[in-house]
Amino acid sequence: MANRSRVSLALRRARISPASISPASSSRPIRQLAQARWQSTASTEDSEGVTKGTTGSTKSFKFTSETYPNIKRESKFSEVTEDHVSYFKELLGKESAVIDGVTRDATDDIEPFNGDWMRKYRGHTKLVLKPGSTAEVSEVLKYCNDNMLAVVPQGGNSGLVGGSVPVFDEIVINMSRMNQIRSFDSVSGTLVVDAGVVLEVADNYLGERNHIFPLDLGAKGSCHIGGNVATNAGGLRLLRYGSLHGNVLGIEAVLPDGTIVDDLSKLRKNNTGYDLKQLFIGAEGTIGIITGVSIICPQRSNAINVAFFGLESYEKVQEAFREAKGQLSEILSAFELMDSHSQSLVATVTKNKRPLEGDYPFYCLIETSGSNTEHDNEKLEKFLEFVMEKEIVLDGVVAQDATQVKALWGWREGVPECLGHWGGVYKYDLSIPISELYSLVEDIRGKISDAGLIGNGEGYPVVEGGVVGYGHMGDSNLHLNVATRRYDKKVEQVLEPFVYEWISKRNGSISAEHGLGLAKKNYIGYSRSVTMIALMKQIKNLYDPNGIMNPYKYI
Amino acid sequence: MANRSRVSLALRRARISPASISPASSSRPIRQLAQARWQSTASTEDSEGVTKGTTGSTKSFKFTSETYPNIKRESKFSEVTEDHVSYFKELLGKESAVIDGVTRDATDDIEPFNGDWMRKYRGHTKLVLKPGSTAEVSEVLKYCNDNMLAVVPQGGNSGLVGGSVPVFDEIVINMSRMNQIRSFDSVSGTLVVDAGVVLEVADNYLGERNHIFPLDLGAKGSCHIGGNVATNAGGLRLLRYGSLHGNVLGIEAVLPDGTIVDDLSKLRKNNTGYDLKQLFIGAEGTIGIITGVSIICPQRSNAINVAFFGLESYEKVQEAFREAKGQLSEILSAFELMDSHSQSLVATVTKNKRPLEGDYPFYCLIETSGSNTEHDNEKLEKFLEFVMEKEIVLDGVVAQDATQVKALWGWREGVPECLGHWGGVYKYDLSIPISELYSLVEDIRGKISDAGLIGNGEGYPVVEGGVVGYGHMGDSNLHLNVATRRYDKKVEQVLEPFVYEWISKRNGSISAEHGLGLAKKNYIGYSRSVTMIALMKQIKNLYDPNGIMNPYKYI
Repeated sequence: MANRSRVSLALRRARISPASISPASSSRPIRQLAQARWQSTASTEDSEGVTKGTTGSTKSFKFTSETYPNIKRESKFSEVTEDHVSYFKELLGKESAVIDGVTRDATDDIEPFNGDWMRKYRGHTKLVLKPGSTAEVSEVLKYCNDNMLAVVPQGGNSGLVGGSVPVFDEIVINMSRMNQIRSFDSVSGTLVVDAGVVLEVADNYLGERNHIFPLDLGAKGSCHIGGNVATNAGGLRLLRYGSLHGNVLGIEAVLPDGTIVDDLSKLRKNNTGYDLKQLFIGAEGTIGIITGVSIICPQRSNAINVAFFGLESYEKVQEAFREAKGQLSEILSAFELMDSHSQSLVATVTKNKRPLEGDYPFYCLIETSGSNTEHDNEKLEKFLEFVMEKEIVLDGVVAQDATQVKALWGWREGVPECLGHWGGVYKYDLSIPISELYSLVEDIRGKISDAGLIGNGEGYPVVEGGVVGYGHMGDSNLHLNVATRRYDKKVEQVLEPFVYEWISKRNGSISAEHGLGLAKKNYIGYSRSVTMIALMKQIKNLYDPNGIMNPYKYI
Repeated sequence: MANRSRVSLALRRARISPASISPASSSRPIRQLAQARWQSTASTEDSEGVTKGTTGSTKSFKFTSETYPNIKRESKFSEVTEDHVSYFKELLGKESAVIDGVTRDATDDIEPFNGDWMRKYRGHTKLVLKPGSTAEVSEVLKYCNDNMLAVVPQGGNSGLVGGSVPVFDEIVINMSRMNQIRSFDSVSGTLVVDAGVVLEVADNYLGERNHIFPLDLGAKGSCHIGGNVATNAGGLRLLRYGSLHGNVLGIEAVLPDGTIVDDLSKLRKNNTGYDLKQLFIGAEGTIGIITGVSIICPQRSNAINVAFFGLESYEKVQEAFREAKGQLSEILSAFELMDSHSQSLVATVTKNKRPLEGDYPFYCLIETSGSNTEHDNEKLEKFLEFVMEKEIVLDGVVAQDATQVKALWGWREGVPECLGHWGGVYKYDLSIPISELYSLVEDIRGKISDAGLIGNGEGYPVVEGGVVGYGHMGDSNLHLNVATRRYDKKVEQVLEPFVYEWISKRNGSISAEHGLGLAKKNYIGYSRSVTMIALMKQIKNLYDPNGIMNPYKYI
C-alpha cells in the first residue's frame, strides 16, 4: 500500500510533457555536460593504473621518464640529427609542417606535443612532423623505419593512458593537417574522412545533413577520428549503435615500411578476404598510422528523453535493464548505473536538490532517442508504469525540459568530479559480466572497511561512503572509484592486485574503453592469456619488425 | 490530379489493420519462405562465378577436379594412410567420430561430406573426422600440420562458393559434434555456443528467452554458427543489427599448429590489445578452425509489418530509402529492391495476382520490426502517406495478415527461382555504392540488347526482359541476374570481364556476402588491390605456413 501510493506520486511527477522536450534543445545539454566534465577533470593516474584525485596536483608536470624510471630508452633507435631534419623539411615543404627543436630552439612550440592534456605524461621529443597527405605519411614512415627513428602517431592528444605522447625522443607524427572530409553519401550514410578530422567537426557536418556520427564522447571538440579508431573509442552511443568494429567500413593506413593499406571501402558488405582493417581498430598506432576512415553513420533522432529512477537492489537494476531493453528496445540509447554512495557524495559536494525524494541503494539514468517524440514518450511512460507497478523501480522522474535533462545527466556525469572533492580518487575503468558487475564494489567496500581504512575524520584515508560504483550499465562498463582524503599505500595494498585478480577470475577487462597505452601496458596479463599476448606480439612483429611504432607502450 | 486520386486509392488499400498482424504469426511466414527458397534453389555456378540455371542439370555431379582441371593437387601434402587413420581413431575414440574410407569401404557414408548441397563441388576425401571438443580439434590439427595432411573445416556445408568441401583428398573436419549451447545471459543478451550449433537451434533457444540471433538466412536449418562466422554471413538482419564484426564478442579457435586462440570474451567493451578474433570472421577456415563463438543477441521484436511499393525511377527508390531510414529509422529491418523486369517474370511464371494494379519501373519491399505494434503501424502509415503525397512512391500496399506478409515477401524471395524457369541464369552477388547500384543493370541490358542477344523466341539466348536487378538495397547488395534459354558463350562474353571491371572501377565488391571459396578465388583482384592481396597472403602464411588449411581456395 505504501509502495502503491509512492508509485502514484512518482508517476504524477513523472508525467511526460512531450512539447517541452524539443529535439534540438534536449540533445544539447548532454553534450555541454560531457564537455564540461571533460574540461574539469583534473586527475592523474600513477604507474599502476590507479588514478589519484588531485587538488592542485597538476602543478608539477614530471617527465614520463622520471615517473617511470624503469623504462629505459632503447638504444637501437637513432637520435634525430640535423640531416634527418633537413630531409623532413625538404619532404614536407612548409615550415609549419615541421616543428624543429634540433637545429633551433623551439621548446615552446614543441611542448604541447610532448605532454598530454592531463599533464601526466611528458616526453622529450625535439621533432614534430605534420604530414599533409597519405603519401607524405608514407614517405615519413619509410624514412623513419629505414633510419631506425622511433615515432609516436598523434591525433587530438586526448587519450587517458599516455598513448599519444612520446616517452623519450620519439618523433611525433601529428595528423592535424589531414583534416578534410572526403565524401558523404546521404543515401547510404557513408562518410569518408581524413584521419585528422576532429570528431565534432564531422558530427556537425553530418548534423547539417540530418545524420550523426555513431560515436560520441566528451573530448569530441579536440579528438581526431583517426585517434578514435586507433583507440577503438567506446563513448556514449555504443549501446545504441555498436562498436567501431561494426561501423567502420574501411581504413586507409600506412605501415612502418611505407606500404599504404588501401582498404577504404565504402561498402557495408564485402566478403573478399581477411578483414585486415580490423587490426588497426584499437591498435593504438603500434602497427601503422591510420590516414583515412570510412564509416557508416545513422540518421539523427528527432526525439530524446531522459528518466531517472531509484531501485532497491542490484538485482532490480538488472531487471530494469532487461525490461528497458525489451520495452524501449529500439529507442534505448543509454542505461547508466549510479549507486547510492555516488549520489550521496554528489549531493554533499554540489548541494543540489536530489531528483528523487527518498534515498535508494541504486539509481539508473535512461535515455531514449527515436524518430517520433510521441511514440517515444508513450513507450517511456508505459515502461515507467510497468517497472513501478512491478516494484522493479521504487521511484522515478522524467525530464520535462532541456534544463531537467541537463540536471538529470548531471547526477551521472558529475560523479567523477565530485569524488575528487576530498583529495585523491582511485579509479578503475572495467568491463565485467553484467550479472557480477556490482559485486566488485561490494567486495572492495568490505575489504576497505575490514582494514579500518574508511570513516569520518582525518584519521581515515577513505571518505565515509567513498567506495562507489557507477558506469555504462548498458555496456557492462563499471567505474569503480574510491574517494580518499589522501594517497595512502595501505589503501592501494587493499585494492591491488585484488581488483585485477578479481577481474581476471571473471574474464573481465582491465580496460573497457580507454585502451592500454603506457598506463595499462603491464596489466594486460590480467585480461588476456599468455597465448593471446604471444599472438598479439606476433602481429606487432609482423607489421613493425623494427619496433619503431609507438614504442614502450601497448603490449 | 490523376496522381492524387491514385494515392488515395492506394492508401485506402494500404490501410493498416493492427490487430491482424500478430507478432507470432507474422514473423513465421518469412522464415518459411526463406527456407522454401533455399530448398528449391537448384542452380549451379560455373568456374567463372556465373550461375547457370538448371532444369535437370543437377543430375550430373562432376568432381571439382574435373570441373577445374587447371587446379592440381599439391604434392607437398601427404596422402592419408592406415597409420593416420589409426591415430585418429585412437584420439577421437568413438567409431562415429571417424568415417574411414581408407581402411574400409565407406564411400556411401563419406559422399555427403564430399559434395555441396548444390551438387556442384565434389571432392575425393576418404576421411571425415568429427572432433567433439576444442582439445580434440587442437590434437587433430596439430597432427595434420605435423604430417602435412591438408584439411577442410566443415560446418553445415551450406555455402555457395565451394568453400566447405574438399577439392582432392583433404581430410574433412566436420564440426557437427560440437553442438552445445554453452551459456546465455539474459540481461546482457550474450550467447556462447560451440561452433557446430545449428543457427536455427540457437535462434529457437533464444526465442524461448525472448531474444533473437542477430543473423538470419535461408539455410538456418542446417548452417552452423561457426560456419556463419567463418564466412561472415550477411543475411536478412544486417540492415538492422549490423555485421558479425560488430556482434561477435569473442571467438575460440584452433590454429594449424594446435594453438588454441582463447578469445571467447563475453564483454561488449575490451580494449586490451589487437582484436585478433576479427581475422577469423570471414577467413573461411583458411587460418584456423573456429570452435566457439560468443555473440550479443538483441531482444525479439513484438511487431512486424511489411509494405510493398511501386516507384517510377531509381532516383525515387533512393529517396524512398532515405525517407525510410529517417522516418522508420529504428524500426526499419529490411529495404529490398526489385525492378520491373524481375516482377514481370515472377508474374509470368507464378501467374499470381500482382500486389499493385499498375506496372512500375521499380518496386520496394519494406519490413519494420519494433517493440510496439501500434507505434510501428502509425509510423509506417505516416511514412506511406508522406512518400505518396510527395510522389516518391506511386502506389503501395501493406500486408494486413500473415498470408499477405508471406505473399509480399514472395514477390522478392521468389525472384531467383522464377528466373530459372526458361533455362540458365547468370548470377552475380555484388556490393556497389548505392547511388550507382542500379546503373550496372542498365549498362548490361544495353550491351546485351546491342549485341542482339535478347528477345522473344528460341533464336535469342536471353529471355525478353530477362536482365534483372534486385537485392538488399539497405546493404547496397545487388543481385544482377540474366535469365536465358540456354548457356551461351556470346552472352558470357558480353558479361565478363565487363561486370567485374565495372565493379572494380566503382570500388565495389565481387562478393558481397557469399565469400570467395573456390568460385571467386581468381577474381579477388577486381575488389582488392595488389597490396591488399599481398597483405592477406602474409596473414595466411603467418598462421598457416604449411598451407594445410582449406587449400586451393580463398586468396
